[in-house]
Amino acid sequence: MTTSPRTPLWKSIATALEADLAAGHYPPGSKLPTEQELAQRFIVNRHTVRRALSDMADRGLVRSRRGSGIFVEAQSTEYPLGRRVRFHQNIQASGRLPQKKILRRETRLADASEREALHLSEAAKVFVVEGLSLSEDTPVALFQSVFPLDRLPGLPEAFETVTSITEALRRSGVADYIRAETRITAEHATATQAIHLAVREGDALLYTLSVNTDLNGTPVERGRTWFAGDRVALTLKDG
Amino acid sequence: MTTSPRTPLWKSIATALEADLAAGHYPPGSKLPTEQELAQRFIVNRHTVRRALSDMADRGLVRSRRGSGIFVEAQSTEYPLGRRVRFHQNIQASGRLPQKKILRRETRLADASEREALHLSEAAKVFVVEGLSLSEDTPVALFQSVFPLDRLPGLPEAFETVTSITEALRRSGVADYIRAETRITAEHATATQAIHLAVREGDALLYTLSVNTDLNGTPVERGRTWFAGDRVALTLKDG
Repeated sequence: MTTSPRTPLWKSIATALEADLAAGHYPPGSKLPTEQELAQRFIVNRHTVRRALSDMADRGLVRSRRGSGIFVEAQSTEYPLGRRVRFHQNIQASGRLPQKKILRRETRLADASEREALHLSEAAKVFVVEGLSLSEDTPVALFQSVFPLDRLPGLPEAFETVTSITEALRRSGVADYIRAETRITAEHATATQAIHLAVREGDALLYTLSVNTDLNGTPVERGRTWFAGDRVALTLKDG
Repeated sequence: MTTSPRTPLWKSIATALEADLAAGHYPPGSKLPTEQELAQRFIVNRHTVRRALSDMADRGLVRSRRGSGIFVEAQSTEYPLGRRVRFHQNIQASGRLPQKKILRRETRLADASEREALHLSEAAKVFVVEGLSLSEDTPVALFQSVFPLDRLPGLPEAFETVTSITEALRRSGVADYIRAETRITAEHATATQAIHLAVREGDALLYTLSVNTDLNGTPVERGRTWFAGDRVALTLKDG
């Protein structure tokens, strides 16, 4: 290994291990070799290996589980909470292939919370789309979109041929829409959510409740999303 | 009960029960009377009571737990994620008394992630403040604030006499600071966190990692906060 004389040994080891992670030699969730094995590989003492691993743990790359070893951390998909954020663009920006599976489409009466969010009257109907968002083949979020049917009568037909909400809204006359309000809480995965998201029942999920409006401020969608807590980080950049 | 002839009966019952909740007759977490008891109280049939409770459940006021009854939901403290948000102001805005308990103060070397967040060099020192934020007497969040000591040498002394970060920074020459970047994920409470936050080990927490800068963009604080997931909702308003 050629390193500048000013780079400490532990740092070179951390860099080499990071390159291994980037190359996919140790995928997320897998166990790293033991400290002793790494010490033999790099021909250093275990103290130096421990310093490298501790630095990697500080940066969230690996996590030590007492008694069972050092494991590679899943790197979260960053999901920026901007005004015009679209799921597909986020996944694509991270270099992965976005996918969407529609699980359910239905027309029904709006419930009380939907009427409040979408400014609907008592007997108003909504069109509901539920589905699963994936990054490559990994499930990242369950979503439910509720649309005011009276305002967007063409929507059910649009969703016959497209899965993109942006595109379906465009075909229904909504050229653009923005996130007016978002509420973020933490929840536990139910049994059904756990199956869809490939997590364990009770695992921590990020739950967001949003109201999206057209550019005149009229609500066009109430969106609820349950993100797999260990695969997604919602980010806000104000700088 | 006097109601306009156009108000459905179930709605009057929901309104009456909501007034009971607002008056504190059934505090968060407590069990409502049974459907049968409510039917007797309002002199209606159980179907009408069920319709009222279902409407309240839709709006997140109560939650039905199979086999054990209807329980009053804890109403979350709204925590707006603005650029200049301060904890005390949020709690005060909700009409409650904010409190803060400092659990730990120390000066130590910055770790790798702190050096990265605060743009520090290898041997830089940080001043760390850890504590618990409360709304009235209810714990809502654990926090850890890490400050660059070289840039803010007067900070440890300031924290001898104040608990407010805004005030301590002001006394150290930082007139104002803003949230440059925030990252939100969901985590499970550790045993220690559970004790401080009065939740159960494994309960879902909202975890935020923020970097705050002065008005020139120089990092002055790296903040980590663990919010009790069922007591706090982070909110974003763009409208």
